[in-house]
Amino acid sequence: MPLLNENYQNLEESYLFAEIARRVSKYEEAHPDQKIIRLGIGDVTKPLTKKVIEALHKAVEEQAVSETFRGYGPEKGYDFLRNAISAYYKKNGADVDPDTIFISDGAKSDTGNITDLFGKDNVVLVPDPVYPVYVDTNLMDGRKIVYMNGTAENDFLPMPDPSVKADLIYLCSPNNPTGACYSKEQLEKWVAYAKEMQAVILFDAAYEAFVSDPALPRSIFEIEGAKECAIEFCSLSKTAGFTGTRCSYTVIPKELVFPASNGAELSLHAMWNRRHSTKFNGTPYIVQRAAEAVFTEEGMAECMENIEYYRQNAKIIADVLRKKNISFTGGVNSPYIWFECPNGMESWEFFDYLLTHAQVVGTPGAGFGENGKNYFRLTAFGQHESTAEAMRRFEELF
Amino acid sequence: MPLLNENYQNLEESYLFAEIARRVSKYEEAHPDQKIIRLGIGDVTKPLTKKVIEALHKAVEEQAVSETFRGYGPEKGYDFLRNAISAYYKKNGADVDPDTIFISDGAKSDTGNITDLFGKDNVVLVPDPVYPVYVDTNLMDGRKIVYMNGTAENDFLPMPDPSVKADLIYLCSPNNPTGACYSKEQLEKWVAYAKEMQAVILFDAAYEAFVSDPALPRSIFEIEGAKECAIEFCSLSKTAGFTGTRCSYTVIPKELVFPASNGAELSLHAMWNRRHSTKFNGTPYIVQRAAEAVFTEEGMAECMENIEYYRQNAKIIADVLRKKNISFTGGVNSPYIWFECPNGMESWEFFDYLLTHAQVVGTPGAGFGENGKNYFRLTAFGQHESTAEAMRRFEELF
Repeated sequence: MPLLNENYQNLEESYLFAEIARRVSKYEEAHPDQKIIRLGIGDVTKPLTKKVIEALHKAVEEQAVSETFRGYGPEKGYDFLRNAISAYYKKNGADVDPDTIFISDGAKSDTGNITDLFGKDNVVLVPDPVYPVYVDTNLMDGRKIVYMNGTAENDFLPMPDPSVKADLIYLCSPNNPTGACYSKEQLEKWVAYAKEMQAVILFDAAYEAFVSDPALPRSIFEIEGAKECAIEFCSLSKTAGFTGTRCSYTVIPKELVFPASNGAELSLHAMWNRRHSTKFNGTPYIVQRAAEAVFTEEGMAECMENIEYYRQNAKIIADVLRKKNISFTGGVNSPYIWFECPNGMESWEFFDYLLTHAQVVGTPGAGFGENGKNYFRLTAFGQHESTAEAMRRFEELF
Repeated sequence: MPLLNENYQNLEESYLFAEIARRVSKYEEAHPDQKIIRLGIGDVTKPLTKKVIEALHKAVEEQAVSETFRGYGPEKGYDFLRNAISAYYKKNGADVDPDTIFISDGAKSDTGNITDLFGKDNVVLVPDPVYPVYVDTNLMDGRKIVYMNGTAENDFLPMPDPSVKADLIYLCSPNNPTGACYSKEQLEKWVAYAKEMQAVILFDAAYEAFVSDPALPRSIFEIEGAKECAIEFCSLSKTAGFTGTRCSYTVIPKELVFPASNGAELSLHAMWNRRHSTKFNGTPYIVQRAAEAVFTEEGMAECMENIEYYRQNAKIIADVLRKKNISFTGGVNSPYIWFECPNGMESWEFFDYLLTHAQVVGTPGAGFGENGKNYFRLTAFGQHESTAEAMRRFEELF
């Protein structure tokens, strides 16, 4: 009889968005006539851009003919895409060697699977609140987590505590769910701390494309010395609306080498390469061609147009919150707006209240950690009309 | 400083196909004028079929317009595809509930990641020779492996040994690399043994579409009682030429429930669902539509036409081996042909010999386990002309 991975018993029963979907679908069944507006799950609504669609059609045609058909691709991803990503980094002020880039099917997969490379007994620092995948995937492995408090007092941007020893440090900036974004000076402090501790920063930059303030870093690799202490995850899900198309990339510098107990030097890049080529077989060729199109000048301009559209939604949400004297973070360099639930409600209570009284779906802060339990997240990924309608209902309610 | 997963030190340095690629590319650089024929890696050469191409273009168009755009999909995959797969199973004599099917990006990912659900101290039975992912992924987790010998004596189809206790049992039929295929009676014995041991069979059916003998089972679920002891992995890579398009499916019956040490009942289906929704974000919508097209009557007929083409290659290879009195397995219900290396050569030695003397690339049996070290695999996935040319060179050489 097989022994199972009993760590799974330590997980909350249902993943956040599955629980939201369950509650919404239950409500919908009972009230089929009501129009629900979804500003909950961070899913985009704008279709793929023209350049991406063209690239997809073209790649599909290549797959239709023997002469241009592509089967298994290179294990790290096609050079054409890795070179394009490296050039994109360069434009944003970071020097990233294409050979250190791994193409994947999603930042969720890579931030989840990266734990495979590490032993059980590490001190893992995770911000609270944050994207729940970092916590869940470490719990699955039986690792203990040390939370770093993100609160209104520190603008939801926890900083290193020199008295805390750390081995692995998760950072997400712009942050999901709070929309807070670390400054260059703050990331310099994190890099200095990580180097002092010989720790590895696992930096999730999935929302970098929303950074509009040129003074804010979009990549950990804009910080000097980061290559000696950081892995970065990025995705086209929000940059280019690839939530249903699936493409991401992970940068693992070759400088990240640590001793094993027998004195051997193990490279995280080499280990991930081994994992990637053993437990993964590449992102679809047609999707890699679509991703390549995102990084062309015209392709990126189209994506920025969509992001501008979402920014206007953020403004619609922010304007109503301001009018109601509800303070919030995010919404400028991020598609997320984060605020304290009105009237002292807890976040799942507020979720149900907003669903049943205004038919608006948001994301309860409790899903992102203890410090989120009185907070709520709205996303700017809706359409103008429905976002405006949601906020009209919101305004009436309070 | 992070502690790393030191089990990675127990892996062979390089994954089989990466090592082949390395040797071939080294030879190619030294001999740029020679024409190398690749019958090594099991990659298809026929382009995607007409129905699949149509479905892809149509789905791409849907992604271009707000009204039909799809972002994040359902976590287990779209119903349209899961229903189509369930109907396909039914046609082949297996009753598989759509709700037990998980859509994924590749059988390699799922056969690799499934180990996450199990504890460390299981007795893991793995055939030797076999697809190396089962071994490597268990080594990554620090599990010990008990090998089951596949030899010429048992036609490379090891059967259960009642004196050996087992918790997890990997079976691959039609087998990669030997092409050997279990009969119904043999699989019945495996199911009986697994139920006796309360073990779980991890059944890799990636090559089921090549089974031409209607008496041979294409799914473990054609065997009575299998739902109480088996997980099945299947893929469109070989069925429909999706090696570069990426789509697979995994069936985890809800009957698979085992006690934890605290007496709680854990369901493998529920655990995989938790993993799948935490560490994966779905197969691209456009690819799921392409996969749906495979399972239409016309779509499957097109795929079978391609498979028939590959079968003719197998015949070309088999004819030459017979002529040279080299005995082999596979090639009828499988795209692989497996034979003992001529002149007592070891398999990597023969690999180099064949590469340098005939510019033909095959796969050394040693890459599939100890019992493969004097064997060699050729694949039927080439084109008629190049396969014939490769076998002409082969014939001349011996």
